[in-house]
Amino acid sequence: MIRVGIIGGSGYTGGELLRLFVQHPEAQVTIVTSRALDGVPVGEVHRYLKGFYDLRFVNAEPTSVAEAADVVFLAVPHGAAMELVPDLIEETRIIDLSADYRLGRRYEEVYGPHTDPRDAVYGLPELHPEVASANLCANPGCYPTGAILAAAPLVKAGLVDHVVFDSKSGISGAGAAPTATSHYPNLAENVVPYQLTKHRHKAEIEQELARLGHASVNFSPHVIPAVRGILTTAHLFLSEGLDDEQTRTFYSDFYAGKRFIRFNVPSLSFVRGTNFCDLFIEQDSAANRVVVVSAIDNMVKGASGQAIQNMNIMFGLDETTGLWFPALSL
Amino acid sequence: MIRVGIIGGSGYTGGELLRLFVQHPEAQVTIVTSRALDGVPVGEVHRYLKGFYDLRFVNAEPTSVAEAADVVFLAVPHGAAMELVPDLIEETRIIDLSADYRLGRRYEEVYGPHTDPRDAVYGLPELHPEVASANLCANPGCYPTGAILAAAPLVKAGLVDHVVFDSKSGISGAGAAPTATSHYPNLAENVVPYQLTKHRHKAEIEQELARLGHASVNFSPHVIPAVRGILTTAHLFLSEGLDDEQTRTFYSDFYAGKRFIRFNVPSLSFVRGTNFCDLFIEQDSAANRVVVVSAIDNMVKGASGQAIQNMNIMFGLDETTGLWFPALSL
Amino acid sequence: MIRVGIIGGSGYTGGELLRLFVQHPEAQVTIVTSRALDGVPVGEVHRYLKGFYDLRFVNAEPTSVAEAADVVFLAVPHGAAMELVPDLIEETRIIDLSADYRLGRRYEEVYGPHTDPRDAVYGLPELHPEVASANLCANPGCYPTGAILAAAPLVKAGLVDHVVFDSKSGISGAGAAPTATSHYPNLAENVVPYQLTKHRHKAEIEQELARLGHASVNFSPHVIPAVRGILTTAHLFLSEGLDDEQTRTFYSDFYAGKRFIRFNVPSLSFVRGTNFCDLFIEQDSAANRVVVVSAIDNMVKGASGQAIQNMNIMFGLDETTGLWFPALSL
Amino acid sequence: MIRVGIIGGSGYTGGELLRLFVQHPEAQVTIVTSRALDGVPVGEVHRYLKGFYDLRFVNAEPTSVAEAADVVFLAVPHGAAMELVPDLIEETRIIDLSADYRLGRRYEEVYGPHTDPRDAVYGLPELHPEVASANLCANPGCYPTGAILAAAPLVKAGLVDHVVFDSKSGISGAGAAPTATSHYPNLAENVVPYQLTKHRHKAEIEQELARLGHASVNFSPHVIPAVRGILTTAHLFLSEGLDDEQTRTFYSDFYAGKRFIRFNVPSLSFVRGTNFCDLFIEQDSAANRVVVVSAIDNMVKGASGQAIQNMNIMFGLDETTGLWFPALSL
Repeated sequence: MIRVGIIGGSGYTGGELLRLFVQHPEAQVTIVTSRALDGVPVGEVHRYLKGFYDLRFVNAEPTSVAEAADVVFLAVPHGAAMELVPDLIEETRIIDLSADYRLGRRYEEVYGPHTDPRDAVYGLPELHPEVASANLCANPGCYPTGAILAAAPLVKAGLVDHVVFDSKSGISGAGAAPTATSHYPNLAENVVPYQLTKHRHKAEIEQELARLGHASVNFSPHVIPAVRGILTTAHLFLSEGLDDEQTRTFYSDFYAGKRFIRFNVPSLSFVRGTNFCDLFIEQDSAANRVVVVSAIDNMVKGASGQAIQNMNIMFGLDETTGLWFPALSL
Repeated sequence: MIRVGIIGGSGYTGGELLRLFVQHPEAQVTIVTSRALDGVPVGEVHRYLKGFYDLRFVNAEPTSVAEAADVVFLAVPHGAAMELVPDLIEETRIIDLSADYRLGRRYEEVYGPHTDPRDAVYGLPELHPEVASANLCANPGCYPTGAILAAAPLVKAGLVDHVVFDSKSGISGAGAAPTATSHYPNLAENVVPYQLTKHRHKAEIEQELARLGHASVNFSPHVIPAVRGILTTAHLFLSEGLDDEQTRTFYSDFYAGKRFIRFNVPSLSFVRGTNFCDLFIEQDSAANRVVVVSAIDNMVKGASGQAIQNMNIMFGLDETTGLWFPALSL
Repeated sequence: MIRVGIIGGSGYTGGELLRLFVQHPEAQVTIVTSRALDGVPVGEVHRYLKGFYDLRFVNAEPTSVAEAADVVFLAVPHGAAMELVPDLIEETRIIDLSADYRLGRRYEEVYGPHTDPRDAVYGLPELHPEVASANLCANPGCYPTGAILAAAPLVKAGLVDHVVFDSKSGISGAGAAPTATSHYPNLAENVVPYQLTKHRHKAEIEQELARLGHASVNFSPHVIPAVRGILTTAHLFLSEGLDDEQTRTFYSDFYAGKRFIRFNVPSLSFVRGTNFCDLFIEQDSAANRVVVVSAIDNMVKGASGQAIQNMNIMFGLDETTGLWFPALSL
Repeated sequence: MIRVGIIGGSGYTGGELLRLFVQHPEAQVTIVTSRALDGVPVGEVHRYLKGFYDLRFVNAEPTSVAEAADVVFLAVPHGAAMELVPDLIEETRIIDLSADYRLGRRYEEVYGPHTDPRDAVYGLPELHPEVASANLCANPGCYPTGAILAAAPLVKAGLVDHVVFDSKSGISGAGAAPTATSHYPNLAENVVPYQLTKHRHKAEIEQELARLGHASVNFSPHVIPAVRGILTTAHLFLSEGLDDEQTRTFYSDFYAGKRFIRFNVPSLSFVRGTNFCDLFIEQDSAANRVVVVSAIDNMVKGASGQAIQNMNIMFGLDETTGLWFPALSL
């Protein structure tokens, strides 16, 4: 049984880890921290977990967490993970859900100063099998997960000139703290574009696609009236024409054997609560354009589920362990 | 042209007054205050008003407002109105949208200390024609408006033993400030009961029904995933049996000539954005129970629209002036 | 391994059975029927199931289903189950999700003619331990499940005079076929009362509460803008006064050892996708009234999950088998 | 007073015309037709209109409508308008809300056979001042209205190479008839891409932009969980670089004096129920890309409101007559 520690368990990604680990047959959460909620039972903070955990949040030092756990998940804000990793990395394996170790040297130009520059494996397992031997796994951002998976096969094939990722996201990606954007009267019956040309996740998409080939990246996110899910419409402009069958073959070959990639009608519903990335492809023969839509649950494949998928791979388990269940579609 | 002043124009009820006065042919907003937004154009705070007002918010003293206005609307939090009224009442007529003057002597047992006990007219014009001569009009609460109008005819007829008001409200009644309750992930696809036995509006309902006759009042509110509107299901338990036609006659007689009372299929949609109170009646012959459903827009008939209806009556206009338009049903 | 057959697998309750059985360790769906979809893979109808089943829908005779299954779930419309049961009952055990066998002799006065009057066990396992030996289990209606569980302890204690069940339901209870009520523009930002005094589930609530004691039942349902879940506000008027602690003791004693009953903050979110019935109690000392709120997922505890809970009990398994997971709260 | 006839008044665009004409000071609906609802009062079909019209639907011949009206609005399905226009055009002026006369000769390649090819003025008044003298005005489609207005200034300036219009629409554009797409459980908490490369409105966008200059058009619509509104994110790829101020100047010059064009924070809320098209511009200096977001109410500026704006211009009124009111933002 893998002993799991979670640093920062009171937010959405921490709660989602706790939700998912209830069903994991080979891992058990042994410690979960929160500075503000020291001593409070997990089920009183995450009310939907009532009855599932005897654990209480603790305000523990990183070293105590490392002692109690074979793997530690960092569900902390950007900038906080880099304070923790140096104290943990000698003692345990780490899966960091923040942005701190995703961008390597480019981090500072996007986010600001970094106090602990070191290499990590980018934890998008469909592209990075070397996750298996990672001691520090940088779990991808939610938008990059859906965007990269939508474009990777054609970028790898060297066929993409430029791409517009127009993403529609549920609001849960903004976290548990109420804000003007998450205020119900502002979001209901609306759609909110933001950071249309300057979102920080663009750098992550660029970095990963550049590893595969060429693509000039444009990324524009929007929040829609939904809690979970990101649907990304990738408008891929090709350098040469393809027919529908050729395109499909690139995708099916690229993702052969990848259990969490499905070709399906595009819908947030069909992936809700799960670790799937559903893909849908439509060829625009008139325009050297292929439109690929990806649908993920931002809290699962876009965060905590993918983190557990990474853990599974790091510990030699089947990647689907504890994650093989269908969506709560309705 | 009636000159209108608004004290506290940056919140939801203030914005709604501004929205409604755009279409009022006999009144014009001449001054609108906000301490925090002194100097900011109205259309930069209430973005939907862009292009409609040249006004800027001012941080003005009550006396300056009184000088610039024939009537002053107080769109301020409970407790703040009682600080303002003594300075205004000699200079202008007042319509107070807060709770401060609704309950008379009972205020203190429900809300706390009152520094300016004085009489006001309860501004539910369907029940209080004396609004016409009021200098201080206490605009009703949102829940009481829908609840009282649903029950009044049978209470007046002396036929009610007790009543359960089970109300379903949009979240806009909670105001413009983001809270845990208004956080989209907490409200979407949910329904949130609160203050099931102790809501402060219960006193207001009791007071007004007691003026008409007897009724033992139970009131339980819920927030639903909607922005505007309150649908109140009034379960009226009668002291003696009625048939369907008798009940309908009580209602149609009681509300004869009241332009904003409609008998209609019960739906928040059909009153959205308007000053109507739609009523629907269903007799439960098996149980000496009548179920009356009222639907209002909490921001209009439940607040700013009713305030303007009161203004119309106070200034000798037809009560529908500036308020006679259909709902944005879809 | 229990072999499971489902008759009528293309609708919402059929799909929900299929979703839940994916995770059941002791049972496996071996046959699922649909007249209209004969030969179509399950995952092409229920897209969220893509990758989980190799099954195709078949247009099979009841006897073929009985042969392939140790237990047959009837997920068919009211009136259709009574056509099937006589052919199945000698061959297999049956859990009927329709209303056909819930009401015994009273069925005909509520629903119309019955062609196969016979006894069944009412499958609300918290009240009916005799489910264990049932061959024909009549799975309860969605509204009755939440209503009965909210009121049962005080009715059993002989303390209830009358009760108003004011229920707020998601639209999924109306099924997969588009109607005017389920049309998005009609339901979004709205709340729709219907059958305020005459809903057919009232008879079921009355029958079950009458087995426990006295209670005059009033039941008024509403549809809210939500897919899953029923929140029932039970206004219980008592024949004598209780204090808060006495009330709580009645509930905690009554439900001692019942795993799917939780005392929790009332919210559809906290039970979404699960078999829990969360209860919340608030005493109105001023009125001899207790307000008890129950929250269930109408598709799970109100239908398919409770059906599986019944199956577990009928086959000697722990009642939580395959059903012990937390809600998709967000 | 302009006498207005509406052919096909029972659907969403017909109801919206009726809603808007309540407030129009210079026009009055004198006749409204519906085959299916002959004799039914308008307020019993469109419940939100209860109290506003004495009219009943009639099943009248086109010639009778022409006699009773100075202008006739055709709110009928595509293909039906071309059957009516020949009988009406000699007798009255026509504003056709269907697609029948928008595309001229290109109609047949997009929609199918046309039985009455004749010229009409494309009723996008910000681009077509010749509406003033039109006898047959082809009211634009909802998507084209928002897309064309977002791109026109830069296309006119000859600076656009290609553009991706990624549109997010409320469901009301699909009409009043319930379908699988409009089924609440399918749309809530979801986003539904459709016709990603082949939507018929693409031809309309291409036609109008080609009148202004060059632009290779890509158009991909999505339905979001909202009733009203279309937000179009126009990703404009330029043939040469622009700075932010240059871009803004192109837009402000192009739309100088256009009352219904506002530069505003992009939000469906701020235009809800109104005839505005709000525009928001963001320069992506890194990519020769400008992102322009347009927000309209598809029922108003995208259909019935724009039709009335056209009527105003055709009859020599100020274009804002009866349309100058702010959004129901909340």
